[in-house]
Amino acid sequence: MGLIPDSVERLVAEFGRLPGVGPKTAQRLAFHCLRASRESVERLGDTLLRLHAEVRTCPRCFFIADSDLCGVCSNPRRDPTQVCVVEEALDVLAVERSGEFSGLYHVLGGAISPIDGVGPDQLRVAELIDRVAGGEVREVIVATDPDVEGEATAHYIAERLGPSGVVVTRLAHGLPAGSNVQYADEVTVARAFAGRRVL
Amino acid sequence: MGLIPDSVERLVAEFGRLPGVGPKTAQRLAFHCLRASRESVERLGDTLLRLHAEVRTCPRCFFIADSDLCGVCSNPRRDPTQVCVVEEALDVLAVERSGEFSGLYHVLGGAISPIDGVGPDQLRVAELIDRVAGGEVREVIVATDPDVEGEATAHYIAERLGPSGVVVTRLAHGLPAGSNVQYADEVTVARAFAGRRVL
Repeated sequence: MGLIPDSVERLVAEFGRLPGVGPKTAQRLAFHCLRASRESVERLGDTLLRLHAEVRTCPRCFFIADSDLCGVCSNPRRDPTQVCVVEEALDVLAVERSGEFSGLYHVLGGAISPIDGVGPDQLRVAELIDRVAGGEVREVIVATDPDVEGEATAHYIAERLGPSGVVVTRLAHGLPAGSNVQYADEVTVARAFAGRRVL
Repeated sequence: MGLIPDSVERLVAEFGRLPGVGPKTAQRLAFHCLRASRESVERLGDTLLRLHAEVRTCPRCFFIADSDLCGVCSNPRRDPTQVCVVEEALDVLAVERSGEFSGLYHVLGGAISPIDGVGPDQLRVAELIDRVAGGEVREVIVATDPDVEGEATAHYIAERLGPSGVVVTRLAHGLPAGSNVQYADEVTVARAFAGRRVL
């Protein structure tokens, strides 16, 4: 045996694979679990063990769901004429927090990135075209990230949806709320200028 | 069902109970697990589920162990005449990383803190007295934290070990390596003065 038991060594390694968790944080988390109650640690373990078995992908929008349709698609008060296209499931939560959107979502599963070998076929673009072809959708709001991959994806989607006649919009770019102009990068300032509005 | 499935909601809550993990980080970790492979998530879950069953406390020094004695106590090359007293198991790893110590440890399980209701009886002080009474120990190096609780604990231990005749030492206080004098707090600078050495 080394300095610490194999099972603790293993736990440190597993925690270290989580995003944003470095070796020291992984060690701190593992030792926290050793001090924590057996019940609380086993509850976390059990939740992780059952996660993939219990969570599905919504067959309509590809957000996470436990039954057939997700919590958004199964809500009759959501407006089915607006579809917000996002890269990841986590983006849905960010849009929901804003309280600005009451339509449905479409989770692409990433963005076009030739460097990472991700083309439109690896994303759920065909499924989006099919949804729009259904005829109920009037506006597709593209909320992919404001980076190179997100922009390329947004333009690709607009092009593909062109023949359908649906309105395709893109979230505004500009200065983030509560930020400082002097700390904003040049691309953000340039976009804030381009998108300026009359007061 | 709410916006996200119950099992994901539960995972976010469980991650949020870990130290240093706020609500947004907990959400990010949970959604990472959804995207990660089922095998890797179940491996973490399984490791957590078995942790408390597989890890024991070393009966001699109270560090973590999987068999009878821990990795330090079972190592015949360690010097049994020196015992380094620390508050938590994680402190053992910090001392080991320094490469300066080749003796054994004694994990107290905390520090004296009247505010938190922790007195000497809640710590493994009696066990330390017993170990020293065994006669093999020549020096007890107190490496409790350099804060109020750690200092109080160090003095209490020195007092209790007085009659045994063993040498009780305390880790030096001073400026941390690689730091700046101008950013050091006043207590640290005062202690660095008090502990100054001839060059």
